[in-house]
Amino acid sequence: MSSEDSVDAVAAANERFYQAFEALDLDKMSAVWARRLDDVCIHPGWEIIEGWPAIRESWAAIFANTSYMRFEPSDVEVEVFGECARLTCVENIFSVSGGHTIHSQVACTNLFLLLDGEWRIALHHGSPISSAHHVAPLETEGEVN
Amino acid sequence: MSSEDSVDAVAAANERFYQAFEALDLDKMSAVWARRLDDVCIHPGWEIIEGWPAIRESWAAIFANTSYMRFEPSDVEVEVFGECARLTCVENIFSVSGGHTIHSQVACTNLFLLLDGEWRIALHHGSPISSAHHVAPLETEGEVN
Repeated sequence: MSSEDSVDAVAAANERFYQAFEALDLDKMSAVWARRLDDVCIHPGWEIIEGWPAIRESWAAIFANTSYMRFEPSDVEVEVFGECARLTCVENIFSVSGGHTIHSQVACTNLFLLLDGEWRIALHHGSPISSAHHVAPLETEGEVN
Repeated sequence: MSSEDSVDAVAAANERFYQAFEALDLDKMSAVWARRLDDVCIHPGWEIIEGWPAIRESWAAIFANTSYMRFEPSDVEVEVFGECARLTCVENIFSVSGGHTIHSQVACTNLFLLLDGEWRIALHHGSPISSAHHVAPLETEGEVN
């Protein structure tokens, strides 16, 4: 698999992750995870959850308490390091509450492992972006040193 | 380098990261980063910052606005995948405001790359742990499936 193919395959796995989330479908969500005892999940504002059994429970709880959620990931960036890949993106989340559509943003890191020829999630970390911390463009171009 | 040695080396690099943070020392902080244009940093509540020049600016801004901060990392877990490693930990942060010591917790993912024989940070992601989301032990042991 070429490097470019790997990047595309990781991005495709990431899309399956958000499709599973939107579908609130635990089987589909399970399918995209590595399902190892070393897997890690940090939902926005939550403590670190380690191990697939506990991570699976957390998704079940989230899905049970969610009626509608849509994701439009943006700023997707992938880096592949052998059989490990990191993806970062902004989750643009649209949910409905009290008849109004709410747009919120979560900064996300997903770590993927190539297992049996398939890229699967080994770590998911989401953190709410507060409106106070939108990054302004740099006034001067800094040097890499 | 054996797998166990790699885990120890990654944990040591992580300690240097928090020592640099406590010292509010930009040179020490620079030394632990990979300093690449693909590096990523997500401070708690912030947007995604990409590229060492912008990441360096963010640390400079944080250090300029911080007078005292102590870190006691706990729950440190390391996994090494070839020349890439992920570390997760809880940052127990002690800061002082209005004469009182404040204890807060941040869930942290750090991604390290082995560059020229040294483990250096390529991604840092911190998210505040809200008191509402402390994870209770599972009532039943789930199965890995």
